[in-house]
Amino acid sequence: MLLPMVVAFVYGEQDWKVFAMVIVATAIVGGLLFLLKPTKQKLYAKDGFIIVAVAWIVMSLVGAIPYVLSGLIPNYLDAVFEAVSGFTTSGVTIVPDIEIASHAILFWRSLTHWIGGMGVLVFMLALTPIAGGASMHIMRAEAPGPTTEKLSPKISQTAKYLYLIYFVLTILEVIALVIAKLGVFESFLISFGTLATGGFSYLNSSLASFTVAQQAIVTVFMILAGMNFGLFFLTVTGKIKKAITDSELITYISVFVVISLAITLNVYLTRGQFDTFGQALHQSLFAGASALTSTGFAAYDYNLWPWFSKGLLLLAMFIGGCAGSTAGGIKVSRFIIMAKSVKKYLKEKLHPRSVNVVKYNKKAVEDDVVGGILIYFGIFILIYIVSMIVVSIEPKMDFTTTFSYVSTTFNNNGIDISTVSMGGFANFNPASKIVFIVDMLLGRLEIFPIVLFFTWLFSPISNLYKKVKHKVI
Amino acid sequence: MLLPMVVAFVYGEQDWKVFAMVIVATAIVGGLLFLLKPTKQKLYAKDGFIIVAVAWIVMSLVGAIPYVLSGLIPNYLDAVFEAVSGFTTSGVTIVPDIEIASHAILFWRSLTHWIGGMGVLVFMLALTPIAGGASMHIMRAEAPGPTTEKLSPKISQTAKYLYLIYFVLTILEVIALVIAKLGVFESFLISFGTLATGGFSYLNSSLASFTVAQQAIVTVFMILAGMNFGLFFLTVTGKIKKAITDSELITYISVFVVISLAITLNVYLTRGQFDTFGQALHQSLFAGASALTSTGFAAYDYNLWPWFSKGLLLLAMFIGGCAGSTAGGIKVSRFIIMAKSVKKYLKEKLHPRSVNVVKYNKKAVEDDVVGGILIYFGIFILIYIVSMIVVSIEPKMDFTTTFSYVSTTFNNNGIDISTVSMGGFANFNPASKIVFIVDMLLGRLEIFPIVLFFTWLFSPISNLYKKVKHKVI
Repeated sequence: MLLPMVVAFVYGEQDWKVFAMVIVATAIVGGLLFLLKPTKQKLYAKDGFIIVAVAWIVMSLVGAIPYVLSGLIPNYLDAVFEAVSGFTTSGVTIVPDIEIASHAILFWRSLTHWIGGMGVLVFMLALTPIAGGASMHIMRAEAPGPTTEKLSPKISQTAKYLYLIYFVLTILEVIALVIAKLGVFESFLISFGTLATGGFSYLNSSLASFTVAQQAIVTVFMILAGMNFGLFFLTVTGKIKKAITDSELITYISVFVVISLAITLNVYLTRGQFDTFGQALHQSLFAGASALTSTGFAAYDYNLWPWFSKGLLLLAMFIGGCAGSTAGGIKVSRFIIMAKSVKKYLKEKLHPRSVNVVKYNKKAVEDDVVGGILIYFGIFILIYIVSMIVVSIEPKMDFTTTFSYVSTTFNNNGIDISTVSMGGFANFNPASKIVFIVDMLLGRLEIFPIVLFFTWLFSPISNLYKKVKHKVI
Repeated sequence: MLLPMVVAFVYGEQDWKVFAMVIVATAIVGGLLFLLKPTKQKLYAKDGFIIVAVAWIVMSLVGAIPYVLSGLIPNYLDAVFEAVSGFTTSGVTIVPDIEIASHAILFWRSLTHWIGGMGVLVFMLALTPIAGGASMHIMRAEAPGPTTEKLSPKISQTAKYLYLIYFVLTILEVIALVIAKLGVFESFLISFGTLATGGFSYLNSSLASFTVAQQAIVTVFMILAGMNFGLFFLTVTGKIKKAITDSELITYISVFVVISLAITLNVYLTRGQFDTFGQALHQSLFAGASALTSTGFAAYDYNLWPWFSKGLLLLAMFIGGCAGSTAGGIKVSRFIIMAKSVKKYLKEKLHPRSVNVVKYNKKAVEDDVVGGILIYFGIFILIYIVSMIVVSIEPKMDFTTTFSYVSTTFNNNGIDISTVSMGGFANFNPASKIVFIVDMLLGRLEIFPIVLFFTWLFSPISNLYKKVKHKVI
């Protein structure tokens, strides 16, 4: 929060007090907690999950305070929604008019994207290495994707490399946008939102008023942000051939090209919304990249498009980016391994005695990774069902809007494909808002840390219930 | 087809000629095929799948002919749609005005439900036992649910018991409906549709004009038809305690009660569509039973209900009835085992060294059954995506309507929850109709036989492709 405080000073805004208060308060509470001595020295996988879940929840509760104190979002629950949407890089906003916000608050809002994109605990690991295997557990729990690669034998070194790549790409986009005549401050906000695949803008109309060149720059960096950051590391260290033959990368680019071209043809041919093919292509590439990478920037009102295109955008939201990127969604690699598992299963049904192995990037995938991915799809469906039921209690909602809002939060996307206008997220009832907040956290941390946290939290209660049940029977 | 021919004679209709022609033609072709001697004596699991897939496709293509010859459905593709909807017990109709159809055609149409409900090949097995394990492979491929129980050591005996239970329940419903003052002929049509969980009616308004008593009778028999028929066998043979403690049955009834009561409260409170609580309860029980068992009868215009209720009906469509019933959907047991697998996975994440087993009805479920169910959900999602993309090419469609139509066909349901009126299925383009036809077959045969059939059909082509690819590289 030091950075937005500096921004407030630069622009002569009063909001520096807001950040100063939160900094002092958290420093005091944190300092007191530091006096407690840990009773346990060794951390297990379970502890990794719970540390990540608790850290994200506390971070969101604290990160929401500046919104309330600055007066931009008076309701604390709404402020938590905005903070969670920021940290989880969802980019859905609860603020009806963002253009009245101060520079400091806008900077903080976009910075939450940037912090949450790569993972706040990965950042901590880069600075303060923890002994033993604990750091790997934490990194696994926070980093997107079914498997976590080590770029270096040391976790802290891996974390440093990742943040360095992240930082360099952000600066490159800032430079490109400034060259394309966007203000320096605005270029930082948009670059934070792009590299983190977040989607917060400082304008109510997202990026619709941007020039074609500016939009094209954002398109390129959205696609880069959806790639596995490990591949950039390989490229820099000279292993470019290994990077460009990565099967997830190839599938990701193919999905992007196919979906964008299908949308281009659809919007160009069926409605004649665009005068030239070039315009249709430009807008479709932007929309495809924004949906697939879960950024959620909008350069056009997608609700004017036919349902074939909107359906493809929804599909792209589900697929998401690559593992090891900052993107949301289910991730391309999970779909690849799921499709390969289906193929293997069918082969074994046809030829029961044949031996088949699921291969990914020419390596056999371990059975427990395959199992975990199939479970992931299962639990994804179950959470979807519960979320949809709760949100559909809203009297005004229809199926498409419910589905769209649950999808955009759960996949950390931000694109709005709704048929009923609720006039913004602030008008939902608290139950729906809590569902959206939990779904955003579930999506960002890929379900397990949050679910395990709640399992752990409620385990004394469930144990008590079992005891009572046992006695009664 | 002898039965509808008899019906034509009874009512003095000319349509007897239609059925006579098809009977003679199929007898000749069948007789000629009978002269071919099989080169292979032993049948494997793979052959079971392919026999089932071919049988159902041929049956649908032949079953469609009477609709065309009688003049009710002039377009052959539309007639195949109606035949597939009948045999797969989907119950969606392509006929704009069914009330002009002859008695003989109406009888044939409802009879296709009854034949397809229990499985036409199971019927054949009851009459002509095949040597060896082949019949078990066929039964497994055709019977709904993840596992197939044997009621008797002999498959032909099991098939006979199942058909006897099916027949008795049908006659019981006919008697009940006749007592409730429905005509005998009409009672047969509705009972065929109920026990098969089909949903074809002889009225354009489905069952909306029925009396409360008649609708209540149908509700009860819909719920019975959604139960595992093996449980009736247990009940009759005195093992009633084992039957009523079946975990799938308990879950199925609980889901039915919870969904129906939630709908009751929702429709009674929020819109005031019903004057009394009793009316709301009656209609909600009917709707809940119709959706959950995939019957698809309608006693009310569900599109007038709020989205919370319509969403629950959609959810019920997905869940479906019990394994070993005539119902469609994913089946309750698959959801139970999926939820238990998720629980097991979470436990192992929290306590990596604990040993956990997925138990179902107090027995451990084999790993390959669990794997098969998880794969089932995966392939379900993939087919859904492809179907939705193809259907959404229709210019008039919106997301809700596309989702609703794919759901109602894939789950063999028949309930129509759409926001865009297409004026009936006849107005869809051929690509969408083919998607619906394939989805209905995929749903009824639970995906694998149809997918394996196409895999097998296209394997020479894919082998050729591999050879060419190999040579080029």
